[in-house]
Amino acid sequence: MKVAIVGANGYSGVELIRLLSQHPHVEIEKLVSHSSSDTAINIIYPHLTGICELELEKAEAKQIAECAELVFFATPAGVSQGLVPELLDKGITCIDLSGDFRLKHPKTYEQWYKRPFTVEKAYLEKGVYGLSEINRETIKTAQLIANPGCYATATLLGLLPAVQMGLIDLQTIVIDGKSGVSGAGRSAKQENIYSEINGGVKAYKIGVHQHIPEIEQEIASLAGVETQVTFTTHLIPMTRGMMCTIYARLREAQPTLKIIEDYKEYYQSEHFVRVRDEGIYPVTKEVSGSNYCDIGIFVDERVQRLTIISVIDNLVKGAAGQAIQNMNIIYGWDETVGLDQVPIYP
Amino acid sequence: MKVAIVGANGYSGVELIRLLSQHPHVEIEKLVSHSSSDTAINIIYPHLTGICELELEKAEAKQIAECAELVFFATPAGVSQGLVPELLDKGITCIDLSGDFRLKHPKTYEQWYKRPFTVEKAYLEKGVYGLSEINRETIKTAQLIANPGCYATATLLGLLPAVQMGLIDLQTIVIDGKSGVSGAGRSAKQENIYSEINGGVKAYKIGVHQHIPEIEQEIASLAGVETQVTFTTHLIPMTRGMMCTIYARLREAQPTLKIIEDYKEYYQSEHFVRVRDEGIYPVTKEVSGSNYCDIGIFVDERVQRLTIISVIDNLVKGAAGQAIQNMNIIYGWDETVGLDQVPIYP
Amino acid sequence: MKVAIVGANGYSGVELIRLLSQHPHVEIEKLVSHSSSDTAINIIYPHLTGICELELEKAEAKQIAECAELVFFATPAGVSQGLVPELLDKGITCIDLSGDFRLKHPKTYEQWYKRPFTVEKAYLEKGVYGLSEINRETIKTAQLIANPGCYATATLLGLLPAVQMGLIDLQTIVIDGKSGVSGAGRSAKQENIYSEINGGVKAYKIGVHQHIPEIEQEIASLAGVETQVTFTTHLIPMTRGMMCTIYARLREAQPTLKIIEDYKEYYQSEHFVRVRDEGIYPVTKEVSGSNYCDIGIFVDERVQRLTIISVIDNLVKGAAGQAIQNMNIIYGWDETVGLDQVPIYP
Amino acid sequence: MKVAIVGANGYSGVELIRLLSQHPHVEIEKLVSHSSSDTAINIIYPHLTGICELELEKAEAKQIAECAELVFFATPAGVSQGLVPELLDKGITCIDLSGDFRLKHPKTYEQWYKRPFTVEKAYLEKGVYGLSEINRETIKTAQLIANPGCYATATLLGLLPAVQMGLIDLQTIVIDGKSGVSGAGRSAKQENIYSEINGGVKAYKIGVHQHIPEIEQEIASLAGVETQVTFTTHLIPMTRGMMCTIYARLREAQPTLKIIEDYKEYYQSEHFVRVRDEGIYPVTKEVSGSNYCDIGIFVDERVQRLTIISVIDNLVKGAAGQAIQNMNIIYGWDETVGLDQVPIYP
Repeated sequence: MKVAIVGANGYSGVELIRLLSQHPHVEIEKLVSHSSSDTAINIIYPHLTGICELELEKAEAKQIAECAELVFFATPAGVSQGLVPELLDKGITCIDLSGDFRLKHPKTYEQWYKRPFTVEKAYLEKGVYGLSEINRETIKTAQLIANPGCYATATLLGLLPAVQMGLIDLQTIVIDGKSGVSGAGRSAKQENIYSEINGGVKAYKIGVHQHIPEIEQEIASLAGVETQVTFTTHLIPMTRGMMCTIYARLREAQPTLKIIEDYKEYYQSEHFVRVRDEGIYPVTKEVSGSNYCDIGIFVDERVQRLTIISVIDNLVKGAAGQAIQNMNIIYGWDETVGLDQVPIYP
Repeated sequence: MKVAIVGANGYSGVELIRLLSQHPHVEIEKLVSHSSSDTAINIIYPHLTGICELELEKAEAKQIAECAELVFFATPAGVSQGLVPELLDKGITCIDLSGDFRLKHPKTYEQWYKRPFTVEKAYLEKGVYGLSEINRETIKTAQLIANPGCYATATLLGLLPAVQMGLIDLQTIVIDGKSGVSGAGRSAKQENIYSEINGGVKAYKIGVHQHIPEIEQEIASLAGVETQVTFTTHLIPMTRGMMCTIYARLREAQPTLKIIEDYKEYYQSEHFVRVRDEGIYPVTKEVSGSNYCDIGIFVDERVQRLTIISVIDNLVKGAAGQAIQNMNIIYGWDETVGLDQVPIYP
Repeated sequence: MKVAIVGANGYSGVELIRLLSQHPHVEIEKLVSHSSSDTAINIIYPHLTGICELELEKAEAKQIAECAELVFFATPAGVSQGLVPELLDKGITCIDLSGDFRLKHPKTYEQWYKRPFTVEKAYLEKGVYGLSEINRETIKTAQLIANPGCYATATLLGLLPAVQMGLIDLQTIVIDGKSGVSGAGRSAKQENIYSEINGGVKAYKIGVHQHIPEIEQEIASLAGVETQVTFTTHLIPMTRGMMCTIYARLREAQPTLKIIEDYKEYYQSEHFVRVRDEGIYPVTKEVSGSNYCDIGIFVDERVQRLTIISVIDNLVKGAAGQAIQNMNIIYGWDETVGLDQVPIYP
Repeated sequence: MKVAIVGANGYSGVELIRLLSQHPHVEIEKLVSHSSSDTAINIIYPHLTGICELELEKAEAKQIAECAELVFFATPAGVSQGLVPELLDKGITCIDLSGDFRLKHPKTYEQWYKRPFTVEKAYLEKGVYGLSEINRETIKTAQLIANPGCYATATLLGLLPAVQMGLIDLQTIVIDGKSGVSGAGRSAKQENIYSEINGGVKAYKIGVHQHIPEIEQEIASLAGVETQVTFTTHLIPMTRGMMCTIYARLREAQPTLKIIEDYKEYYQSEHFVRVRDEGIYPVTKEVSGSNYCDIGIFVDERVQRLTIISVIDNLVKGAAGQAIQNMNIIYGWDETVGLDQVPIYP
């Protein structure tokens, strides 16, 4: 199957190239970029020499549709809006790694993304929130996937079982997110140069991170009640990896072991979610380069508060890997095809 | 004034040497170590060549008392217990960086430190919890300082103003701690080798960290009610630095700016506490190598939850620096003497 | 085909597990470890959960031979000596990632490794130095592969074309090696804990590194004259990756471009060696997680000195990857089978 | 004494502020910046809050001369040229951390810096190359100091004793430089963002680094013969620190110990140069934050080649620290005033 990648020269785009190069059913046909066109991708990223040497091109929806059956968008907010409707009309499947089609209400989008949403509602309604493990059934028939944000993926996979089983008081959810710097992309910003980042932790976008509304939307969708969470993001001096430490008050006292068993049962047929045994907590390195989401559970019985540790590789399960997992679901392939990378350790 | 350092070859010991070497009123007279005796400190730490070349010695309380007026303990839990009583009897001032004398109740100590507390109560009662900014008056006349833990220092300086002003619901406190690896000391543990730590975040000692009881003790002491907090610690791939992100529900709605003003007033005469303006959050690098504690404040008005970001250098304000600050207070010297190091940036 | 890994719980062993898990023709049948036996590998390395959960076992040559057709040794110096002869006698193929069978003269081994070599010469002579690109023909029929050291691999792939083409004065070779810390293994040594390594570069084993004799042996073997090199190794604060910067005087003036062309021709049919264009130098990250060796060339025309930059992932092309490449050669499989991992970037 | 800093908002400028804030004889009177004027320095660098809160200003030579007796230039190449002559005419002392006045021949400057040198020769001749330990006598009476480049400082302090004692063949010098990323400054370049740098080593500016001509000039000046060196620079994933590994053939066989003794004697009265004992090599961390240059020596007796390891903190001895050391020399103060910072370790 022939695919195109729009925004191919960012880190998520390059991660798509890495994973799709090893996917047996897919051929990358076109790399689209408006900032670096007319350059071969391996000039920009020499590690791709001999692996993918396609030229980056400027391209309109029409040209993309002519060569590809499926299009991945690894673009900044606001870009996919302008291309997806025409591609859908032409029968192309779209998997959008940006936030453009994640939120059901355009106003919520405009409020959190600080930019207009200009697409007709019919297109927005075609979008399925691509949290593979949770929405598998609707993903199967989707033509447009709104691939979840990295923080949202780690948070929701960690939190949703507790929500669905009614274990926690929804008013008490606090999420402390910790991300590697690759999540900030490859653009040249002073705040992201090595000397500013290395050797320090910093909190950023406190209270205004654009992944908050999609987390709240999905919790509400599952719980049936509107919920607001406290969500704080921190930049960690590492390139890849993400941990969400999630806190919530238990509605009823329960031992750690019981909740671990519940989680293991919840995820028993999921290849990419691994729940740790009691007393063991996942480390971000343990999923590096892979599509796994690893989860650890602890109940602080002194205060009846549940602590959930959820880790992913932000560029894989938090972006390119989950996008490919969703593609596999749509096309009826085994969900793990092309995603069997063993975590790189150490 | 002549001082001795017991446990001089660990990271806190070496940090005491760094800072005391630049202190105008102090002379380091003796370095005590039981693991590395009969070696010059600059053989173990070549960076001290030409700065401090004393030999490490095994020494009993009697020998220490003969040469020093004040003794710093930079020792693992359990060591200072065995030496402090005799030193106090001999009129020596003791500043203990370990946890041995921090907790008022021996049973609490034994429960969290998993080791016996064998000292008579009269000695324990001489100990003053050395959080300089909060307990300055009692520190002035103390003969024994229980220097706070690093996490406790960052947490309490961030949290106590809100507690004292009655801003928050004490039952809702969640503390997400993030520490550099130097806090784990210099001993050769597989889990702390570079390849295991670099490129990853991990949660550790969840629910069992020994700084929890001192945090709760000091909150209770100020608030007048027993309080239990949820406290989770994370290891960050950086050498120095510590951040505590503290969450608590506000008792009454208040804007961020109001609470920042309250904090600035609370700390207005404190040299070592800097409260950031609205929208600016401290980064651990901004205090690196210095005795500062920097604090940022945010109110998530959607959920009326207060987020406090508190950062220190774990080896300075979290250990050796605050110990020296306490020494300065005891001896009536300006509190900043020997502690005017500008943060190293970048 | 069934294989066993001896020394499976070190970093090279775990890297073999990572790569062999993705190899279509191989099944890992037994993991041998004397230090951690009776524990499942995924208890020690949770990232392997669901991927490889074999138990580590103590095992003698006989037991290993019963279950495996090929044995990888990822053991410290001195171990494979004791097992290889018996395995060879039983018809098992051995690929030894340690240094035990690399040096043709037992005395050279004993001098550089500071330990006795106790094997009969007939076994030593069976060993083929497994630098795949150079010794492919002899590897094809080998029963025992002495897999090259990581520094030797990076150095020789960078240097041998110039040696073979007679471009350089062999008496002027200086090699400045730079390695990530994973090369030091996983054992708990104080000098390798994070806080000692992070933020610094250090030179180590100057003039005594055990990879020196194999480098000199292979140069001599190709050049036909005894050669001695200056070789200095540095530890870099990164987990994976290795760069050798190689300097040598040109015998005759030549422009950079000419030598690049010569190198490209030399390696034109080699999948795993990529020679950069003029003015571009490889970065260790560009081969991370992959079996590539990337090479950059520069001639300083002012002094007629050639500078060669050669980078590998020390755990892949420098250890487990090249071992598998050699297995592929022996078994007549395509050399890239199981080794098509795209470098992880960033 | 009142000083001004031009280029105060770069890393060298901020390091000058850190060190000068602790200098007893100096007051920082003016911070000049053309890129960030009208902002307080502590808005750009919050770590300076309460320490230095001066506003950055655009300023001409005249205004600078009115308020300061001495001016530090921490500017990119090409800036100080335009201001220094007028300041010298007004009797102001100038210490230039940039390369503008380091090279005796304008043509050499233009060739390596790729920009014109527009100053009259009389001004250039006033400049003294400020390698404090070597040129102390001429520095004492200088009005203009050309502060050495960081690589040049590490290289020359390591190499000059061997040159002066005639130990080495000058035609065989190879310098392998390794620098932390702070040397690349604070500007927002894609190649310097964290995700590009972390986890990798890269060689850069091979054969064209602008510190080459000043190294060659100073060697020639001491040796009395023109000399050309091979000099290659590498970027290391650390913020601060620099190591130069220097290789040269010995003219006569000598044991390591003899050369170490010669070096110790050469530097016996130098506070800031520490020569390690045999078998011990300096690590960059051992000088971090301090003005030391630490040197290790090894003779590879197999090939009669000398290896010298020289480490500095690139921002201190390689920039701001040596500038202050030169100021101390000029003003007849003790050379260590304001420079007694103990290295930060770990």
